[in-house]
Amino acid sequence: MPSSTAILQVICPDRPALVSELSGWVAANGGNIRHADHHTDLGAGLFLSRIEWALEGFGLPREAIEPAATALAARLGGEGQLHFSDVLPRAAIFVSRQDHCLVDLLWRVRAGELPMQVPLVVSNHPDLQDLAEGFGASFVQVPLTAATKPEAEAQQLELLREHGIELVVLAKYMQVLSAEFLAAFQGGGGAQVINIHHSFLPAFQGAQPYHRAWERGVKLIGATAHYVTEDLDAGPIIEQATVHVSHRDEVEDLIRKGRDTERLALSRAVRLHLRRQVMVYRGRTAVFD
Amino acid sequence: MPSSTAILQVICPDRPALVSELSGWVAANGGNIRHADHHTDLGAGLFLSRIEWALEGFGLPREAIEPAATALAARLGGEGQLHFSDVLPRAAIFVSRQDHCLVDLLWRVRAGELPMQVPLVVSNHPDLQDLAEGFGASFVQVPLTAATKPEAEAQQLELLREHGIELVVLAKYMQVLSAEFLAAFQGGGGAQVINIHHSFLPAFQGAQPYHRAWERGVKLIGATAHYVTEDLDAGPIIEQATVHVSHRDEVEDLIRKGRDTERLALSRAVRLHLRRQVMVYRGRTAVFD
Amino acid sequence: MPSSTAILQVICPDRPALVSELSGWVAANGGNIRHADHHTDLGAGLFLSRIEWALEGFGLPREAIEPAATALAARLGGEGQLHFSDVLPRAAIFVSRQDHCLVDLLWRVRAGELPMQVPLVVSNHPDLQDLAEGFGASFVQVPLTAATKPEAEAQQLELLREHGIELVVLAKYMQVLSAEFLAAFQGGGGAQVINIHHSFLPAFQGAQPYHRAWERGVKLIGATAHYVTEDLDAGPIIEQATVHVSHRDEVEDLIRKGRDTERLALSRAVRLHLRRQVMVYRGRTAVFD
Amino acid sequence: MPSSTAILQVICPDRPALVSELSGWVAANGGNIRHADHHTDLGAGLFLSRIEWALEGFGLPREAIEPAATALAARLGGEGQLHFSDVLPRAAIFVSRQDHCLVDLLWRVRAGELPMQVPLVVSNHPDLQDLAEGFGASFVQVPLTAATKPEAEAQQLELLREHGIELVVLAKYMQVLSAEFLAAFQGGGGAQVINIHHSFLPAFQGAQPYHRAWERGVKLIGATAHYVTEDLDAGPIIEQATVHVSHRDEVEDLIRKGRDTERLALSRAVRLHLRRQVMVYRGRTAVFD
Repeated sequence: MPSSTAILQVICPDRPALVSELSGWVAANGGNIRHADHHTDLGAGLFLSRIEWALEGFGLPREAIEPAATALAARLGGEGQLHFSDVLPRAAIFVSRQDHCLVDLLWRVRAGELPMQVPLVVSNHPDLQDLAEGFGASFVQVPLTAATKPEAEAQQLELLREHGIELVVLAKYMQVLSAEFLAAFQGGGGAQVINIHHSFLPAFQGAQPYHRAWERGVKLIGATAHYVTEDLDAGPIIEQATVHVSHRDEVEDLIRKGRDTERLALSRAVRLHLRRQVMVYRGRTAVFD
Repeated sequence: MPSSTAILQVICPDRPALVSELSGWVAANGGNIRHADHHTDLGAGLFLSRIEWALEGFGLPREAIEPAATALAARLGGEGQLHFSDVLPRAAIFVSRQDHCLVDLLWRVRAGELPMQVPLVVSNHPDLQDLAEGFGASFVQVPLTAATKPEAEAQQLELLREHGIELVVLAKYMQVLSAEFLAAFQGGGGAQVINIHHSFLPAFQGAQPYHRAWERGVKLIGATAHYVTEDLDAGPIIEQATVHVSHRDEVEDLIRKGRDTERLALSRAVRLHLRRQVMVYRGRTAVFD
Repeated sequence: MPSSTAILQVICPDRPALVSELSGWVAANGGNIRHADHHTDLGAGLFLSRIEWALEGFGLPREAIEPAATALAARLGGEGQLHFSDVLPRAAIFVSRQDHCLVDLLWRVRAGELPMQVPLVVSNHPDLQDLAEGFGASFVQVPLTAATKPEAEAQQLELLREHGIELVVLAKYMQVLSAEFLAAFQGGGGAQVINIHHSFLPAFQGAQPYHRAWERGVKLIGATAHYVTEDLDAGPIIEQATVHVSHRDEVEDLIRKGRDTERLALSRAVRLHLRRQVMVYRGRTAVFD
Repeated sequence: MPSSTAILQVICPDRPALVSELSGWVAANGGNIRHADHHTDLGAGLFLSRIEWALEGFGLPREAIEPAATALAARLGGEGQLHFSDVLPRAAIFVSRQDHCLVDLLWRVRAGELPMQVPLVVSNHPDLQDLAEGFGASFVQVPLTAATKPEAEAQQLELLREHGIELVVLAKYMQVLSAEFLAAFQGGGGAQVINIHHSFLPAFQGAQPYHRAWERGVKLIGATAHYVTEDLDAGPIIEQATVHVSHRDEVEDLIRKGRDTERLALSRAVRLHLRRQVMVYRGRTAVFD
């Protein structure tokens, strides 16, 4: 059983001595660094750092760590985020009728692969209620039409607040979240939305990617897990996966094979996010794995 | 050393007994089938077949095989193409300044991986002359500007005729062939053009795909080998390959990693084509491997 | 919904006209071939064929097809097996305590990816009872020690007979089946056992492959799905899959990553088996995909 | 054009503040860190670090950097190695008759993918002389039999000394280097030998791996690039690659497909080594990529 750690992510303008200042601060407080990873985007003049150290033996009381860490980041002219590995974020999974991603995510949570809690599953259809409840999540059906979308999203936001959700995973939700919804949920700070798109973006953006991939006669299909932004299918990519297809594969075969890539790409992306291995900057991600 | 074979490709409307009629014809002439592969496109109502049999012991004289085979295909209401495995097609490779695909193709020809002859290399730049000639090919520089393109293409077509070329491989040629050129070269029948596009089509069609992939922050980049049609980047795809990239990769790293996928996708596609394992129908390919 | 098909697998000594005789027999009875795939092992002098045709419009009554087909195979000096795509084999899944392969298989059965019924799950531990029953299977715990193995296996064989099982899938069963068990179950004919081994065979045969892979410092780990024979870990391989690992991965990470490859390799192998795309000969498989 | 950097690799017992001390030393001298990557092997109690910083603006004169850096590592109770990115190591490539790895390596050197010089190619056969010399390397044939091996190896060592070689790449050399040779060449310090083994180690150690892979009926074949130690095929693995094979592939096809994986695994391993991204400890490697 690995002991608890603190994870600091910092993004700030590049200049000399940044690694030294960050790691020096950890050392000055008696911390033993487990992982430290940095990236300099020379074109953008940006420095990104992820430092993880053992809480055991660290000199600051737990409640003092975040203020001190973000103050440090501010002194470097940047921004910092601090997380503890033993604090499991509360996530909601949004689904429609397809169950493969939901089963996979809930199974991985139970197996200890995904360090999060899933108190809530939301769907516009009733089909997956038993599955969600079988894994101990509340299931709420929020039906949705073009006309009722504003009210439905208001209800969804209220549910997210009630359950203290800070991560929404769109696990084949098949609906577009409005800019208003995203602003309301993500505006506050750390909350984020991860989506699985069933194509190798930017190929086949939009609807029915498997049908269009079949039409085009591609030899590989893919799936893309990304953070959701207002600009549909253009959010920062976290993970992509592909699988071979052939002329023998009908559209249904592409859909079947695609389910495996969707599951893998989504669960890897969620795990990377939960372990705070992903940093977003300038519309893209640095993934420290 | 494998003995020589005949390879018959037939495409015709689907109906019962087609496999039986084709294989029965081979058997009636004493042929021993090495490989037989068929595909039915139920949506299109089309039947595709590739049959390869040993020439040794086959009852027809060599010069009578093609007429008999194409007549058989015609009786089935379709079209047939017959090739002999020991007749090496004459190919021309078109290049610009980058040498990686050219080196790879010429090396594979010499190593016996690609059953073709390469009497001719054409380029709009002089850079790769020594390389081409070192492998025994004639190198002809055909400079090209927007203004001189019609004349340049006329010169290229003349070179292809002179050298008896039936396959053109665009190995990072970086120029678009005109509809007129394609009609003149491919119009007659079996001649074809294979291109390597440095992206995972249909993503990043057009120019500078690696720069655009970097901008988009994708986690995989790819390469696509396809037959060339008038519709740029939309020809039937033969082979695709991908490789992982990360935030640490600059555009130059994408280009470097991309060279490996380009080489692999192109050489596999050319090999599949040369072994007559590719059949084109309705803008897509069946690849019998 | 694809219509029902008959699938004939034939293995016999190679000679001319075999494709013609097999497809001619289908055609003579009015059958329309959907897929036909053949392989000649020149070294062994063997011919393998898989032919699948639509039952609709086929001239023989269903009960007459198998006798006719196996008689045909016998006339060719070989053996034939006939299956109908709409007859779902009855399978038992053997497990120990790990649930990932069991969940995956049962989910895929329910999703229509694996054309089989699973009336029975057998385990030497009680842990997975709820899971099995939740998917509608009978769960029987058969405890097992070195001393009680003969009785336990006798009980297992009786269970297999009772439930009419013709396929056993070892989904992380972690026990070795005795030669007697295998002879009793597989001796009769079509019954078979598929196992998932948690390494890239033949590397790391035997126990604790992930620990040994970690010790060796490999950069890829794998999983192997194979038919079970008396010779442990030496049965014919159906499918293998690999995943990258790095120095950052501890043994637990190898185990976690390994679960995904195990699931994928096993479910692909079972699907290939169920669709009768696998033929075994000389200790190896031909996989017609 | 990236500017020159210094790369420090340190391995020492794990304790708090190591990242801080290392990066603090760089910062104290005015260095701007480009990449910093660390790994803690908790089981072994070891800390590994690779730090790369720009030479431009660094406060120490070039000749003073290595002494200071290794003194720092010694103060931490460990060992340090310092390299400059603009100092190209001198490498010798040992080959036998197969040319694919040699062509690939020499092409990549010329293309700027592999930052090394190759003044020397050694072979026990004369076949590849023209190729080596065409790329500007001296080619020396050192024939070798069991009886003459000691003298041959003495000659090889003399050649390595003459040419100032610090890296030997066995690019399908097909001979085992004696313990004496390895001790003499590698004993002094930084010199190393990288080999490409044509299997997915530890599967198929020893001779004729492709023949044995074919016999076993595997569905994937691989290649392994590793540092050479006295214990044949057991040296620390740097890189592994695999490719799918099927029952249609004969031994020659495995060999052909294997050439591509050999080339890729070897060139990636050599590049990682040259960029000082590989650290060896306890018989394994940490690869900081």
